Amino acid sequence: MYSFDVKDATEKCVNWIRDFFKENGPDCNAVLGVSGGKDSSVAAALLVRALGKERVIGVMMPEGIQPDIDYSKELCSFLDIPNITINVGSTIAKLKEELSENMDLSRQAAVNIPPRVRMAVLYAVAASNNGRVCNTCNYSEDYVGYATRYGDGAGDFGPISGFTVDEIKKIGYYLGLPEKLIEKVPSDGLCGKTDEDNLGFTYKELDLYIREGIEPPKETKERIDRLHKLNLFKLSYMPIFKYFE
Amino acid sequence: MYSFDVKDATEKCVNWIRDFFKENGPDCNAVLGVSGGKDSSVAAALLVRALGKERVIGVMMPEGIQPDIDYSKELCSFLDIPNITINVGSTIAKLKEELSENMDLSRQAAVNIPPRVRMAVLYAVAASNNGRVCNTCNYSEDYVGYATRYGDGAGDFGPISGFTVDEIKKIGYYLGLPEKLIEKVPSDGLCGKTDEDNLGFTYKELDLYIREGIEPPKETKERIDRLHKLNLFKLSYMPIFKYFE
Repeated sequence: MYSFDVKDATEKCVNWIRDFFKENGPDCNAVLGVSGGKDSSVAAALLVRALGKERVIGVMMPEGIQPDIDYSKELCSFLDIPNITINVGSTIAKLKEELSENMDLSRQAAVNIPPRVRMAVLYAVAASNNGRVCNTCNYSEDYVGYATRYGDGAGDFGPISGFTVDEIKKIGYYLGLPEKLIEKVPSDGLCGKTDEDNLGFTYKELDLYIREGIEPPKETKERIDRLHKLNLFKLSYMPIFKYFE
Repeated sequence: MYSFDVKDATEKCVNWIRDFFKENGPDCNAVLGVSGGKDSSVAAALLVRALGKERVIGVMMPEGIQPDIDYSKELCSFLDIPNITINVGSTIAKLKEELSENMDLSRQAAVNIPPRVRMAVLYAVAASNNGRVCNTCNYSEDYVGYATRYGDGAGDFGPISGFTVDEIKKIGYYLGLPEKLIEKVPSDGLCGKTDEDNLGFTYKELDLYIREGIEPPKETKERIDRLHKLNLFKLSYMPIFKYFE
């Protein structure tokens, strides 16, 4: 029987972050991209609780003009963390231009470019600031593969990858984050579609299914199962051929 | 007692590639970056043997003017594979510019940008051409962490990641690749240094140590052991916190 003890989960996660840094960089800072949505907001708040606000660097990465950049700024000032803004617009445009001049760039290929450029930015910020990159994917998204491999799916550690959307919101409220950040409707910033539009089901349906076994309508269930199976490879290291051993 | 049966190793690797594609994309193409060095040359030749030359797409990714680009071209014409050239110079320059305007970009951060941009290019080519990205790191390099995580260390499958430099050269000769490609001195293309200069030891010393237990001089052995321990994390999926299970 599923139940979620938000206090216990939060404290254990905070301790896990501390242990990760003890082992992998006692003097390091945590670096994360802050979109101002619940995932990056909750991850940042957990990092601040674990390491102190001086050791958490928020990176804002608008692509050109980002209409909801105020959410990111609000998070950084609410948590009072050091932050930096790197506009990825011109880099993405350059890369798409170079690709398009030499081949037909598919829509799917284009969609995955921004998260990969942002990954490169986060690692550049980390390498320049004694940092470790925090992954901000959640379990619900990861379950159906709603992340770009080696893009937003990358990172050095994943403190919230084991929590569903519903659980992350609960942690957000428990940590006292502003409601507008916790309830911000997630969107990939393309075509005005929300993540739920893209997925074709709600996170609520998904979370009930994966945590409590409550099945959504048949078609939705089949879609979730199919996406899960198709995308599972993203959550492990690539297969390699080993001739020896 | 170590011995390497190049025929057996090659055939098993070819079969492994076929199995990977059977499971993960029976109609897919293999996409790989071709630098013209032994790793990408041998990987490409193995892919051609496994899938046929029509299904192997070589991607040349010079950064501006690349003095040794002829090696890449020679490989593509030798194997007669479809190929594409995407110059990553302007994208890398743009990204470094955007970063440098907003923070001090460390040397290490700058060094890791090109491999990450190239990864994004390979995935864009793959997504636009029904492809799977082939990793071209070898076991010797991986053993001491001489690859960029989420850069050249990325990929969908790693057919040569289990072979040392010495073994890869043997496979290259077995497959009849031109000697100049097999023996090309590997370099990161920066400052005119070879990979062996950067590492501080030779691949021969390294391979003898990791395959046959023949120890190099004490200082070298300690350096290898230290690099191995420090970089092992690159060869697995990032640690994630799991509150449940």
